[in-house]
Order: sequence, then structure tokens, then C-alpha cells
Amino acid sequence: MQVSLIILAAGQGTRMNSDTPKVLHKVAAAPLLHHAMAAGRALDPVRSVVVVGHGGEAVAAAARAFDETAEVVVQEEQKGTGHAVAQAAPLLADLPGEAIVLYGDTPFIRPETLEAMLAARASHAVVVLGFHARDPGRYGRLLTQGDQLLAIREFKDATPEERAITLCNSGVICAEAQTLFRLISQIGNANAAGEYYLTDVVELARAAGLSAGVVTCDESETMGVNTRAQLAEAEAAFQARARAEALENGVTLTAPETVFFALDTHIGRDAIIGPNVLFGPGVTIESGAEIKGFCHLEGCHVSRGADVGPFARLRPGAELAEDVHVGNFVEIKNAILDEGVKVGHLTYIGDADIGEYTNIGAGTVTCNYDGVMKHRTRIGKRAFIGSDTMLVAPVTVGDGALTASGSVITEDVPAEAIALARARQVNKPGLATRLFEKLRALKAAKVKG
Amino acid sequence: MQVSLIILAAGQGTRMNSDTPKVLHKVAAAPLLHHAMAAGRALDPVRSVVVVGHGGEAVAAAARAFDETAEVVVQEEQKGTGHAVAQAAPLLADLPGEAIVLYGDTPFIRPETLEAMLAARASHAVVVLGFHARDPGRYGRLLTQGDQLLAIREFKDATPEERAITLCNSGVICAEAQTLFRLISQIGNANAAGEYYLTDVVELARAAGLSAGVVTCDESETMGVNTRAQLAEAEAAFQARARAEALENGVTLTAPETVFFALDTHIGRDAIIGPNVLFGPGVTIESGAEIKGFCHLEGCHVSRGADVGPFARLRPGAELAEDVHVGNFVEIKNAILDEGVKVGHLTYIGDADIGEYTNIGAGTVTCNYDGVMKHRTRIGKRAFIGSDTMLVAPVTVGDGALTASGSVITEDVPAEAIALARARQVNKPGLATRLFEKLRALKAAKVKG
Amino acid sequence: MQVSLIILAAGQGTRMNSDTPKVLHKVAAAPLLHHAMAAGRALDPVRSVVVVGHGGEAVAAAARAFDETAEVVVQEEQKGTGHAVAQAAPLLADLPGEAIVLYGDTPFIRPETLEAMLAARASHAVVVLGFHARDPGRYGRLLTQGDQLLAIREFKDATPEERAITLCNSGVICAEAQTLFRLISQIGNANAAGEYYLTDVVELARAAGLSAGVVTCDESETMGVNTRAQLAEAEAAFQARARAEALENGVTLTAPETVFFALDTHIGRDAIIGPNVLFGPGVTIESGAEIKGFCHLEGCHVSRGADVGPFARLRPGAELAEDVHVGNFVEIKNAILDEGVKVGHLTYIGDADIGEYTNIGAGTVTCNYDGVMKHRTRIGKRAFIGSDTMLVAPVTVGDGALTASGSVITEDVPAEAIALARARQVNKPGLATRLFEKLRALKAAKVKG
Repeated sequence: MQVSLIILAAGQGTRMNSDTPKVLHKVAAAPLLHHAMAAGRALDPVRSVVVVGHGGEAVAAAARAFDETAEVVVQEEQKGTGHAVAQAAPLLADLPGEAIVLYGDTPFIRPETLEAMLAARASHAVVVLGFHARDPGRYGRLLTQGDQLLAIREFKDATPEERAITLCNSGVICAEAQTLFRLISQIGNANAAGEYYLTDVVELARAAGLSAGVVTCDESETMGVNTRAQLAEAEAAFQARARAEALENGVTLTAPETVFFALDTHIGRDAIIGPNVLFGPGVTIESGAEIKGFCHLEGCHVSRGADVGPFARLRPGAELAEDVHVGNFVEIKNAILDEGVKVGHLTYIGDADIGEYTNIGAGTVTCNYDGVMKHRTRIGKRAFIGSDTMLVAPVTVGDGALTASGSVITEDVPAEAIALARARQVNKPGLATRLFEKLRALKAAKVKG
Repeated sequence: MQVSLIILAAGQGTRMNSDTPKVLHKVAAAPLLHHAMAAGRALDPVRSVVVVGHGGEAVAAAARAFDETAEVVVQEEQKGTGHAVAQAAPLLADLPGEAIVLYGDTPFIRPETLEAMLAARASHAVVVLGFHARDPGRYGRLLTQGDQLLAIREFKDATPEERAITLCNSGVICAEAQTLFRLISQIGNANAAGEYYLTDVVELARAAGLSAGVVTCDESETMGVNTRAQLAEAEAAFQARARAEALENGVTLTAPETVFFALDTHIGRDAIIGPNVLFGPGVTIESGAEIKGFCHLEGCHVSRGADVGPFARLRPGAELAEDVHVGNFVEIKNAILDEGVKVGHLTYIGDADIGEYTNIGAGTVTCNYDGVMKHRTRIGKRAFIGSDTMLVAPVTVGDGALTASGSVITEDVPAEAIALARARQVNKPGLATRLFEKLRALKAAKVKG
Repeated sequence: MQVSLIILAAGQGTRMNSDTPKVLHKVAAAPLLHHAMAAGRALDPVRSVVVVGHGGEAVAAAARAFDETAEVVVQEEQKGTGHAVAQAAPLLADLPGEAIVLYGDTPFIRPETLEAMLAARASHAVVVLGFHARDPGRYGRLLTQGDQLLAIREFKDATPEERAITLCNSGVICAEAQTLFRLISQIGNANAAGEYYLTDVVELARAAGLSAGVVTCDESETMGVNTRAQLAEAEAAFQARARAEALENGVTLTAPETVFFALDTHIGRDAIIGPNVLFGPGVTIESGAEIKGFCHLEGCHVSRGADVGPFARLRPGAELAEDVHVGNFVEIKNAILDEGVKVGHLTYIGDADIGEYTNIGAGTVTCNYDGVMKHRTRIGKRAFIGSDTMLVAPVTVGDGALTASGSVITEDVPAEAIALARARQVNKPGLATRLFEKLRALKAAKVKG
């Protein structure tokens, strides 16, 4: 079944109190918009149309960053959800197959729920996603009779009897694209706000002799974000689910409540994640790897048997092969560390390739930036980089080579060679005592003077 | 209206199980005493008198640290709250205007509440702050009739009917100073404990034909601290409020529950604060700045567009101008970083001025301490400090200058110059292999021998 | 009274979804097995027998790591708890004194509870540990009459009346060893599972005219671990208790919910522990020491007046004497720091002895590893190690000596001497400007192609 998505992302989000458009605020290190698009993508849509507001360039860019085939239409004026969806008509109104309307500020609809809606289309021309609300408050109510959805009633228009209904409208709707846009073209704006309500399609469908039905989901899926407090709640809800899933999948989380996952974090069975670990986008941790407390990981891959941290930062492009050890106060960026490499302490490895079983001493820096360009450092297998070695890239250190502690390596080091770049030590007897005496006298004079 | 404050801070706090006086234990990185004084300060008092206990020098010092005009009186013996307030009589009893009694272990009374008490003085000679307790327990009860407060009844003296009252006494009291001290001078100690209870002033006032009334506040304002568990609860309560306020003010907190604010933290709208950020006293973060996860900030200023962390520490005197970048494992102390300065990795900048758009390489250290005195490092604009540069202060690096990686800079570097202080690299072919063979043989001999 | 322990640790723990045996999963940085053994050890047992499953070498090793006198027996097939205990018969069946059966996956039984069971043996031949379950679910029920335990009824065999009983079986059982093993030898396996149930000993005892009784404990003590979610709950339960105890003992925890203790953490009164501190095994913090936020400590000792962090890591063998200061991005391992030593920033101290009041500059590294062996660094009293000093061990720096910033120290430094190992600084006027021009031209050419 061919499916098209319409994702509404034009809302101003004034209650966010932010210059950033609402759908670009993040949950699990991804814009809300990406969450909605991720749910829709699971249906393998033929077209995804994102409706953005006036000046929605940033939203458009985020949509394309998630899915480069995403199409963007602009709703210049905010005239209601029906009007918003109508902006997609030029792209979708004549297309065969299904259309589903999603919301950029509603991140947790599950793909399975959307599939259930598509399945329900066998029985109904229009399928609306509903949920039983613990506290229905001001949600729109779904008026049903048997398996028929009669209407969606806005709270303010509802009778006391209708307000007693707890089955509420999520806003997500599914219909044949051609049907949907035909019905939308009939929506009027004869209401107090002068807006076009998407919810009207239900009554319009029934007036046209079409069947409308409801698929329900858990209320947690329909959680929308309108304030920063709700954003924080959405983050907490995401994390609670992600932590529970990780535990079920056989991941050890010492203190689950202190671990923050991204939308796309992958962690293998029997991996161990200590307290206070933050995952940014694009992280894969293989089975049996260990991430100790206080680590910050983004865009990296940690293989089986590797251990990282505490106090380690892996940045995009960090690839740790099996049994790599990355210790404390170490940053790795855009670098490939082969099997068994050890980087124990206080080191920056950026733009580098390091061969298997090489040992990197404390205080080592790959000097990858010359003030204008970035360059790569290449280190062979079983090399020994002495503590406080500066590797001035581009530079290559051969297999089995050694750099002496404190050396600045500006030229390539052949395999098996020792590279040395340092001055000889001189001891000056008694001089420390005399120096400190002098400094103390100076200080005393200063205080006095 | 002229107001004087009396802040009771003489309690031993034995239930804290601590050598530190109770009111010096901290919430939100500030002593409890400062919280109470901060509420009172909002009234712009003419005099603030802190009543400390025997040996209360540390408390007195803390009071003056918060407000150098604060006056301290000593209550040599603990003979009740009435006796404690009476110690302030020599300073305040003849003063015109209002007096308010506050408590050093009750940190959350809001200035608005105190203002409401002052306003209520229009109707009553004595105004007591009360609250409706969810669980009244052993609190004193406020006996009222209409708008009149008849008496404050200690729990142990209360009848079953009186114990059923849920309006309780916070202890905070407001009256004309001269009235208050006249009433206090009439308090007796004919009770089991032989103490002088401040609460008696209500009945004494009424006996003198004066009106007494109640102002109520939320119970959360009256939270007192008597144990370390309550201290932790007070911290949690403070943080919950501070986090909610930050969200309302348009700050993004990815994981609010992991961010800890100080009493005086200022954060601008659309600033982004990642998980696990600790704010000590004196921090201002401007609008649109970003503090990534795992940061520790005290006494610093971060301007618009700057980004900090993860794993960064800003100490007192760190001033980051717009678009400054401070990366991981970086410490900044007493240093001014002009616009666009970048300090990416593993660096200590202390006692320094850095000009705009200068780049500081990884592993750089400002060697500010010679064992006796501290000295300042000055770096110009658009300079390039190579990785692992030691800047031995006092020293100046000119605009556009470059220091070679691994150099120890002991003399000033002119603008546009390159400063180099390092040995030439020598490669010794084959030597690494021979060295490791020798070391392995040594080890084997050792193990054997 | 002579006591023997039988600790059942043979369960597969399939619901853990792990290759690690269940009892080796950790709570408070210790395997579950160690928690159970620690409770038992408080009774000063004459023998401790751990029953492991087929291939339980890792469990056996963990048991011996906790108590080198622990004996291990293997239950080759999983044929029930009665069968498991029976494996210990060759070691214990003829021993005088008491036997107690504990469970390797039940970490929270308190020693006081076990002592109460031993005391109850004065009245009963067999004593079972029970608890009143809030939600009895599928626990076995204890059928009692007066002070007599009539039987332990498995849930699936229980009548509706029996299911209404809330007094449940913990599985922990105590009897004279000879009695216990005699009864166990009579257990049959005529049940659906074909297993030998330890619970049958109660009815067997009564059939033999012996008295059986119940000792009850709080339900929280009997918490078992069967899934990773339960493991995380057990961790949370342990931490909640440990935090509350620390507060009661007069420790300041700014944010108790962010501090994680190990089973054996010792913290003195008036120590201050900031937010986000992780304790691994073997840590002692003396009274009045301060551990700031973001610290990771294992196997170390921090003395009175010392302060550590933020962002510090103390590893096994780190011994900090009084008034030592360890600052940010500092790692200490297997090193003794005498009174008043300061290690402020970005330093690795491993395998070292440092004399009193010595100051270690930022960026210092003890180069303790030569690629084959580890060596020790010795620094005297009141020495001054300049920033970025590499101490190539084995090496000794004498009392009052100074190493110049940026020096690589390969030879011993006499007391009071200055050691210098660096090149002279050369400034090359105008060269930086010319270099950057050249680099920019190169880049432009590159981009152009």
C-alpha cells in the first residue's frame, strides 16, 4: 500500500518562549520533528510533505536533514489545521494511495499505531487516532456509535454529556489521499476563530455517505509539546522507555535514571553502562563493551570488549575496535583506533588512524590544526607514543616505533625507530632554594612597598 | 515604611550531627542564613540584626559576608525565642518603624509574603505568619476569631479541639519595633522549660488592647531545616522551583532534574543547559549561550553565542565574551576571553587576558604560579597558541603571533612573530625494537631472579 | 554458637538475558553474591559453602575473592532448592552447630535478621524467615498456628483461603546442621516439576515431631533479583538506604540522589560530598574531607581536610593525607600523597610517593610505563614540579627541588636543585604572519583544485 505523509510543523509555539521554532526543540538529542518523521518513515512513504510556517527555513532544513526526499510547503498564514493540510494538496491531492496527517510536535506515535490505522482503512474511509484520556480536559471528544465515528467535537462546543466522554482526538488522521483532499476542500471557516478545522472531515465524510472509524492508542503516544516543561516531560518519558527497553534487551545500566539515550542509540546485550552517561546521536555500543561513569558519546562506534571512561568523550567519527581502552580525560574525534589500542589519560586524538596494540601515553595531542587547515596523523601497529608527545599533523609514525616522552614530532618516524625531540636535562645544585628565597623576598618587598 | 530585621541564628542544631552551626549548612550553594537574609533584604531594611549563639563567630562572619552592614548580637544562653529577640533590644527597641523576626534555618519565606505582613500592619498591631499544614503534627496552632488572632497555642498545651486546628505558626512575626520590644519585655518564663517564648507576645498584645492578625503563606515557604535529611529536602525543594522557573523563563534544560542552581544563578532565554550541570554562586549565562553536559561553573559570565563543555570548569573570574568556545577538560579561572576565543581541549587558563579570535591549542597551560606568587598572562588578538605551550607568567604574546607546539614561553613574543622553544627531532633507526627487546629481557630476568 | 552457611548460587538467571551468571551482576559495585556472603559473614561462620551450577567457575572465583576460606560445591543438574542444599551435605551434614541457607540473588538480608533466626532456634528445631508481603502474588505462603509453622505452601498448590495469607516465605532457613541434612535426605520429588523442594523440610520436621517457627523481617530485605529491571531496583534500594544512613551519620550530601555508594564505602561525619559522586569499592573518606561534584573514586583513602575535584579520579592505592588538594582533570593511582600536597589540574600521578607540601604543576605526568614494566616516581617534601613536567620513572626528585616547566626528567634531581630540560626560546619576527599567508594560499589552491 502506497502511503504519503503530511507532517504539520507550522505552529509558532509561543508558549515555548523561544526564538527556536517549536518542532526544532529537541528530545533525545533529536528535534521533535525528527521523532514524528521517524514514526512515519517506518511506513516507507512514497512522499513526505512537511508543512512549515512563514519563515520556516530552519524547519525545512531540519526536515531535509532527516530525509533528503522530504518536500516542504509553506503555510503563509495560520488559518487552522485544515488549511495547513490543504497546503499539501498541490503535491498529493491526485496521488493514489493513502495519506496520513502527523504532527511535528507530537513525537511518540508508534509505527505500529500507524499500521493499525492503515489496516482499519479496510473498514472505514476515514480513520482517526483516538485515546482514552485519564484527564480529558479540553481535548476534542470522539463521538462514536458502534464502530462508527460520528464526529469530533471541540471541547468548547461540547454538551455536558459529550464532555463526559473520555475518548479523545489525537489529531492524527488517515484516508485515501484523494478522499482526504476532496473533503478538506469542503471545510468551511464559519466559526469564532475563522479557522479551517481538519476535524470537520469526519462529519463531511459521513455527510458524503462515507464511513469513519477510530483506532485507539495509549495516551502516552499522543503526548504533545507546547511548553518547555512539557518538553522536559517528553524527554523524561522518552528516557524512561529507552531505559526500560535497554534493560529488557540485556544491557546493564547501573543507574538507569542517570543515562540519557538519543533517538538512534544502539547498545548490545551485556554491554555495561555506568552512571551518568550521555548519548548524543549516532552511537553504537557492541555487546560486552563497557562505558564507565561520566562519559559523553556522539557519532561513535565502540566494539566488543572495549572499555571507555570514566570522564571520556567520544565525538563523531570515533571508531573503537575490539578491546580498545580509552581512559579518563580523553577525547577522541574522527579517528580509527584498531584492536587493542590503549589511550589511558589526558589525551586528545583527532583526525587520526592508530594501528593495533599501539599504546598512547598520557598527555599526548594530535596537533591536527595549523590555524588554517586540519591534517591527519597516522600511527602504525604496536607503536609506543611516549607521554606528552605532540604529533604535528600531517605526520606518520611507523609500526613498532617509539616516541620519547615530551617530544614534538614534526617529521615522519620510520618503523621500529625511536624519535626524540627534547633537550638534555641539567641539574643546577642549590638553585631552587636560592630562587625561592629571592621570590619570597620580592613578595615581601611588594607587600611592604 | 522603615523596616528592621531580626534574624534568629543562635540554634545549636544538634540534630544536624555536625560541628558546623546549622544556619551555615548550605542550600543552593549558599548558607541557610543567606536565604533568610535575602528574603529580608528585598524589604530594603534600615538595620539587620542577626542573633547568634555563644561562639557564633562563623555565623557572624557569614552574616557580614552577605551584608556588610549586618549587625550581630550574641545570645549567650539559649533561653527561648523571646529571649533571643530581646538581645536585639539595645539596637532596635527605640527605633521608629517596623520590625520583622525571621529565622536563619527557614530559608524559603518569599519577599512577597513579608510585604503582605507589612501591609497587614495597617489593620493589626501584631502580625503573625501562619500556614495551613497538611499534617499539623506538633506545630503551634493559631487560635483565631474572625480576623483576630487570639493566641498561639503550643502543641503540648493544646486541647484536643485546638489540636484539630490546621492553621499553624511559622514563627515569623511583624510589629512596630517599639511595640514589639515593649511586649517582649513582658514575656515571662513560668513554664516547664523555663524559657521565654516569642509566641506569648500575641496574648500580651491583646491584653494591652492591641489587635493581632494572621497572614498566611504556602506551607512550602515555612519549611525549616533541623536534620541533614531535611537539608537535602530543602535543596530538592529549591532546585525544583528553580528548574521550573528556568523553564518558564525560556531556558532549555534537557534534563532539569540533573541541573543544580545556586541562589543567584541568572540564565537568559533560549540558553541551553545540558544534563548534569552544576552552578555555584555568581554565575550569569546570557541568552543563547550553551552549556553542555558535565559542567561545573562558579563566579563566571558566559556571553551570547558562547558554548562551554562538556567537562568544562569555569571558576571565579572567568569572563567569556560572545562566541567563545571552551571545550572538554578545560579549566578557566580569573581570565577574560574576548570574542571568538577558542580553548578546545585539556587546557588550564588562569590569571590571563586573551584577545579576540585567538586559538589556544590542546594541552596549553598558563603557568601562573612560581611557587610564591601568581602572575598574569596576556595574549593578543588572533594569536595561535600551539598545543602544549607553557606560558610562564608574567608573559605577553602579541597580536597575530604563533607559539610552536611544545614550547615553553618564558619571554614576551612580539606581534606577528613565531616563538619556538624546542629541540630538533632525531630519529634513531631500529632503536625502538632493540630497546623493547632489552626491557623484555630485563623483565624476564626480574621475574626469574 | 557455631554456624555454617550454605549459599545457593547455581541459578541460571535466564530472565537476566545475560552471559554473566546472575549472582555476579552487581549492586553497589559488588556482585549480588558478595552481598549475601557479607550478611552471613557477620555471624562469623565456621564454614561457608557456596553451591554453584555447572560451569560455575566464575561464581566460585567470586566467592573466594570475597572469602578465601569459602568452599564451593557444584550442583551439576538443576533439580530444585532441596537438591542444591544437599550438595553441601558431604561438607556439613556431620558438623555440630547451626546451618543457615542463604541465596546469592537475595542481597539485602540483614545480619540482625539472621541473628534473630539463630535466637529463635531456642524454641524451634527449624526456623524459616518470613515477611508480610504488600502484594503476596505468587510467593509461597507460611501456614501458621500460634507460634508454630505448619507448612510452606507453594502458591500453585494453595487453596483460596491459603492464598489470602500475606505471610510469605523468603526461602532463608535455619536449623541444626545435622537435623537439616537429615530432613533434606527425606525430601521427595513426586511433583509436577520432578524437583526437590527445600520448603518440604517444614512438614518433614513436624512429621518427625520437631517444632518449626517463623521469624519475620521487612519485605525489603527479601528482595530478589531475577531481571535487569529488578537489578536496577535493587541498586536504587541499596542507594536509598546508604544515602539515608550517610545523612544520619552527619555526612553532608548536597544532592543525595546523585551519589552512588559501594557496599563498603566509609564516610566520616561532616565530610561534604557534592553532586554526582561515584564510589567504587574500597573507599574511605575521613571526617571533614570534601569531595566536590563529578568525582569517581575507588580503592582510595582521603584524609581529614583534604579536598578533591571537581572532575577528579582516584584509583586503587591513592592515599591522600591531611589537607591534600586534588583538583580538576586529575587522576591518582597507587600513589601516596603526604600532608598538604597540591595537584591542581590536568595531571596523572601513578605509582608515586610525594612528600609533604609539594606542589605539582598542571599537565604533569608520571611516566610510569616504559612499554614493558611499571616504575615508581619519588618526590620529596616541599618540592615544586613545574607545569608539564614529565617524570620518567624510575626517578627521584629531592626535597625542596624544582623542575622547570616543560622539562622531561629522566635523571634523579638532588634536593634543593633546579632541574631543567628544555630548549631556549627563539622569537622569529614576522614569521607567523607569513606562515598564515602561505597556509591560506595553500588552502585556497587546494579548494580550487
